[in-house]
Amino acid sequence: MKNYKFEISYDGTKYNGWEKKTNGITIQEKIEHVLSEMTASTVDVIGCGRTDAGVHAKAMIANAHFDTDMSENEILQYMNRYLPSDICINQVCIASDNFHARYNSVGKTYTYTCFTGPKKPVFDRKYVTVLDFEPDIEKMRQAAAYLIGSHDFMAFCSNRKMKKSTVRIIHEFEIVKRGSYIYFNVHGSGFLYNMVRIIVGTLLEVGKGSMKAEDMEFILASRDRQNAGPTAPAQGLCMIKADY
Amino acid sequence: MKNYKFEISYDGTKYNGWEKKTNGITIQEKIEHVLSEMTASTVDVIGCGRTDAGVHAKAMIANAHFDTDMSENEILQYMNRYLPSDICINQVCIASDNFHARYNSVGKTYTYTCFTGPKKPVFDRKYVTVLDFEPDIEKMRQAAAYLIGSHDFMAFCSNRKMKKSTVRIIHEFEIVKRGSYIYFNVHGSGFLYNMVRIIVGTLLEVGKGSMKAEDMEFILASRDRQNAGPTAPAQGLCMIKADY
Repeated sequence: MKNYKFEISYDGTKYNGWEKKTNGITIQEKIEHVLSEMTASTVDVIGCGRTDAGVHAKAMIANAHFDTDMSENEILQYMNRYLPSDICINQVCIASDNFHARYNSVGKTYTYTCFTGPKKPVFDRKYVTVLDFEPDIEKMRQAAAYLIGSHDFMAFCSNRKMKKSTVRIIHEFEIVKRGSYIYFNVHGSGFLYNMVRIIVGTLLEVGKGSMKAEDMEFILASRDRQNAGPTAPAQGLCMIKADY
Repeated sequence: MKNYKFEISYDGTKYNGWEKKTNGITIQEKIEHVLSEMTASTVDVIGCGRTDAGVHAKAMIANAHFDTDMSENEILQYMNRYLPSDICINQVCIASDNFHARYNSVGKTYTYTCFTGPKKPVFDRKYVTVLDFEPDIEKMRQAAAYLIGSHDFMAFCSNRKMKKSTVRIIHEFEIVKRGSYIYFNVHGSGFLYNMVRIIVGTLLEVGKGSMKAEDMEFILASRDRQNAGPTAPAQGLCMIKADY
């Protein structure tokens, strides 16, 4: 069996996240279904990460082992024909036998997008979070600076029963304001459950003036989810890149 | 009563076009409803044109006469709060008493967007028409050149019972290819029912090789809808600008 690597874009609006679950349709399921039909066998697809319900991806990386006579381009065409219009396979290639999309990933980039101002984001309303206030960008940048480096991010994790290490490295955190849009671009070694959304929710509290930039130090040290801000809505989040 | 002028963006996907009808919800209705609630009176809204079911607008111009104590900015805020997320009022200003969004319009610009290539337009799939072939841009440009100027566009009109003049002027017709996108930008004095969509449908026949650029001359002269190509799907069309 060959090991195929995929790059996938999706609009997560209608899905209960990437990973197979007992309730709701997921992106992993949709892709496994098409590959299983294509090969007339059971195909398991491994994603580089697990996006939550409603979260989008520009370049989710996945891999799957299966046999086929089809070329990579034929597989791409077949999958895009049978997948719904909100999921697109951007690329198919053959990877080494031991390539594992999740275990081999050494970093990921996410972008969280907010929209402010009197207008409404009519055409991209499903990919942004609309704010009813104008956050202070400089204060949010000061707060984000506390997160750079290696830290225990337990306070920014929704999973209370997390048994594995909650230490992650954030390499870069950029906050860009362009017109009515605010982009939070974060590049790290990996992210805990809801981590990016809780970080953005906390930064927005700082931007609103309800928290101070310096509070980040205390929140991190406390390792207590209750000290961080709310979890920002899923729809503003998009997985941009996985590093190998 | 003051005469208010509005600039409106909308995603037409869920609507049965701009104009009030006996079936389906329309954008005009949504806006009239909000203004009627706001003023506690019946408000009629006049649009600069009538977009079809599923057609979008970046800047539909409309006007309405009503009384209110609210400032233009308060009206804008109120309307955007109560209109759904797929309709946005970009601007409200006071116009002269006799300003009429439809009668005073002297020109309009529409863009029709197509998408080609092996990928799928996941995030803007509702605003483009996906082609399963790569049209010849140069041939489509040659065909479009026949439309420039003043012509009787009866052959490009879906309304067979059209009693008024079917002569319109096309000032500019630009076809731009950028990556996987093809943009048809057309600027004219005004457009007949389905005219832009039938023109694009016909140009795509030329781009595919099923018709020749020179056929445009015959189609125009015939004044017969049956000689033109199919009506391109609504979702690729967007009203961009109205001239006054």
